[in-house]
Amino acid sequence: MNYEVKAVETLRIVARNKPLVHHITNIVVANDTANLTLGLGALPVMADAVEEVEEMTASAKALILNIGTLSGESIEAMMRAGRSAAAHNVPIVLDPVGAGATKLRTETALRILEELPVTVVRGNRGEIGALVGSGQVRGVEAVGDEDPRDVARRFFERFGVVTAVTGVFDVIVGKNKVFEVHNGHPLLARITGSGCMATTAVGVFLTTGEDPALQTALALGSYGVAAERAAKHEPGPGTFRSKLLDEAAALLTKGVDGIDIREVED
Amino acid sequence: MNYEVKAVETLRIVARNKPLVHHITNIVVANDTANLTLGLGALPVMADAVEEVEEMTASAKALILNIGTLSGESIEAMMRAGRSAAAHNVPIVLDPVGAGATKLRTETALRILEELPVTVVRGNRGEIGALVGSGQVRGVEAVGDEDPRDVARRFFERFGVVTAVTGVFDVIVGKNKVFEVHNGHPLLARITGSGCMATTAVGVFLTTGEDPALQTALALGSYGVAAERAAKHEPGPGTFRSKLLDEAAALLTKGVDGIDIREVED
Amino acid sequence: MNYEVKAVETLRIVARNKPLVHHITNIVVANDTANLTLGLGALPVMADAVEEVEEMTASAKALILNIGTLSGESIEAMMRAGRSAAAHNVPIVLDPVGAGATKLRTETALRILEELPVTVVRGNRGEIGALVGSGQVRGVEAVGDEDPRDVARRFFERFGVVTAVTGVFDVIVGKNKVFEVHNGHPLLARITGSGCMATTAVGVFLTTGEDPALQTALALGSYGVAAERAAKHEPGPGTFRSKLLDEAAALLTKGVDGIDIREVED
Repeated sequence: MNYEVKAVETLRIVARNKPLVHHITNIVVANDTANLTLGLGALPVMADAVEEVEEMTASAKALILNIGTLSGESIEAMMRAGRSAAAHNVPIVLDPVGAGATKLRTETALRILEELPVTVVRGNRGEIGALVGSGQVRGVEAVGDEDPRDVARRFFERFGVVTAVTGVFDVIVGKNKVFEVHNGHPLLARITGSGCMATTAVGVFLTTGEDPALQTALALGSYGVAAERAAKHEPGPGTFRSKLLDEAAALLTKGVDGIDIREVED
Repeated sequence: MNYEVKAVETLRIVARNKPLVHHITNIVVANDTANLTLGLGALPVMADAVEEVEEMTASAKALILNIGTLSGESIEAMMRAGRSAAAHNVPIVLDPVGAGATKLRTETALRILEELPVTVVRGNRGEIGALVGSGQVRGVEAVGDEDPRDVARRFFERFGVVTAVTGVFDVIVGKNKVFEVHNGHPLLARITGSGCMATTAVGVFLTTGEDPALQTALALGSYGVAAERAAKHEPGPGTFRSKLLDEAAALLTKGVDGIDIREVED
Repeated sequence: MNYEVKAVETLRIVARNKPLVHHITNIVVANDTANLTLGLGALPVMADAVEEVEEMTASAKALILNIGTLSGESIEAMMRAGRSAAAHNVPIVLDPVGAGATKLRTETALRILEELPVTVVRGNRGEIGALVGSGQVRGVEAVGDEDPRDVARRFFERFGVVTAVTGVFDVIVGKNKVFEVHNGHPLLARITGSGCMATTAVGVFLTTGEDPALQTALALGSYGVAAERAAKHEPGPGTFRSKLLDEAAALLTKGVDGIDIREVED
């Protein structure tokens, strides 16, 4: 498959349809993920009041559940939004931020996976590992040295959900299908929310309704290409953050030359 | 009237008095709107605990109620702050973010309009339209093709509140007075919070206590001029966002040459 | 003491150990303070659910309590996190944002000081003054003209906590020790969260476990040097904000040449 052509095709469909992407997310990355959603051509909405999430999700084309700053109320909002997504065939992307760091985060992520038809989970090696009984995190960062391919495979086997483990390279495990994505830049690890933004990119790409594993690989590859371009001339992390949004917004025009997705042996 | 002179005069008064602008706002734009408030010479404070909002509003010169991420508690905080504003003659600006997208947002905006002496409402065509029974929104964006002039007029007739509908051009309807503002740039639609920042600009300009419709036009015109300058050399949206704050902060020094406010037939 | 060498040594230790810095903070500055934490080499986590804060703090090397946007629940979270910090010897930094502006803020700051073993408090002249019965604030900004040295001394005498009053210059009062820091730039006052970021820098420097007054001076000096460098070529505040993060992240490489810390007569 020509991934470059396919990624640009997705970006074109998104830009034409301007699908709504409903986020229930955290106070740290709300602004950045909203801007990334706009940059990729979709429309963001952040809404987490229990009274309105079902209605909001019903008009969305993707729902992103990000557990970065939980509260009792936001957990209830996530469950309600998720049930609404299930009823309206809206794909759900789970970002288990900091799973493994506290019992609340681990249990909330597991509860979402058990009670809701999650389409894709995206996390780092530590977070995804923590949900299958391994994994080491410090706050929201992965530590330790597990192989991300093993982690992703175990997670997929356990939950049957398309699994994306992002890091130095990204691994996506779906049904009969494993992708690796070799894009991105070390500067991503120097800004907060780069993982959450990757999750948002996945949500945007899922709005087309096509194969989730492939769309996840395309999303992560495209986002990684934007990061590579933003990192030209070695900016500091503050400048990189602005440029990342610039380059994400330019992907449709510039194309995603350099996207490096490899379908590997299952 | 020489709008250019009048806008700069307002900015000078603001810079001299450093009025406090109390925001009850959402997690997406809190940082950007605080920075814009500072850029325009005023002092921002974000406070939404029900225990403190009355006291905070009492020492403010404008109160901004932004319903972008509501909760049961923030609604109660808005009502309390609004009553305090009424008691202390503090102008209230309502930003009905996403009205029309959910019942909660529509009803909360209507409740605020009914129970509080709102001075100015600022929204896009879809949001303002939704509150008078028309209007189409997708999340927090306007869709459809209503004429913003009709929407603003109907809203003013229904609620008797100075009404600003912003978009490709802005319409402000007040008592016996209609302004159009032809400033701004398409890049504003590529960043999140550009509407919320417009609302903040209005709040800052209202702190002088002068005619609300005129001050709203001056605020939107000045903000639009800053956007035009920030858009020079076609930056991407991430860079544009930073430059918008730069240019807003430079308005007092550079002046607002190019401000295009037209008083039109009522 | 060679403060330059000592500051770089701290930055090196931080970069090597990547300590977790747990913030319970406000919606305005969560992103900026997380990015600054990363820039200085540590790992940020923002978590304020009462169910998880004790656990999160237990694995952190510093706890930052920032009262910028309080709620009933976040106050309870701060008390629980603080008790966990006490039990695990995690230093606590208090940022009493807007103390003096409302009774809730003043009383919450005082409650934290009374019930928790705060290591360092960092605020502006108005906030710190308000907690010892003087001080004037407008929202979260200091007004009035008290001498920050008097304010800091009185606070230290009253609470016995290392006290940092930041402003045109910074004063740090500890046991038998008073420092002044003459770094920074007026542009810091033109962006929101510059005080909160200073507090974060203090938290990061405290993770080494060394003398809190000295580490606070080193943190504020280093942060001030980054601000001076970011202000080169007189950027607007939006651009300055990005460059501040760039320069903070470059401190370990560039060193902190120009750090101006003076130990003054007690």
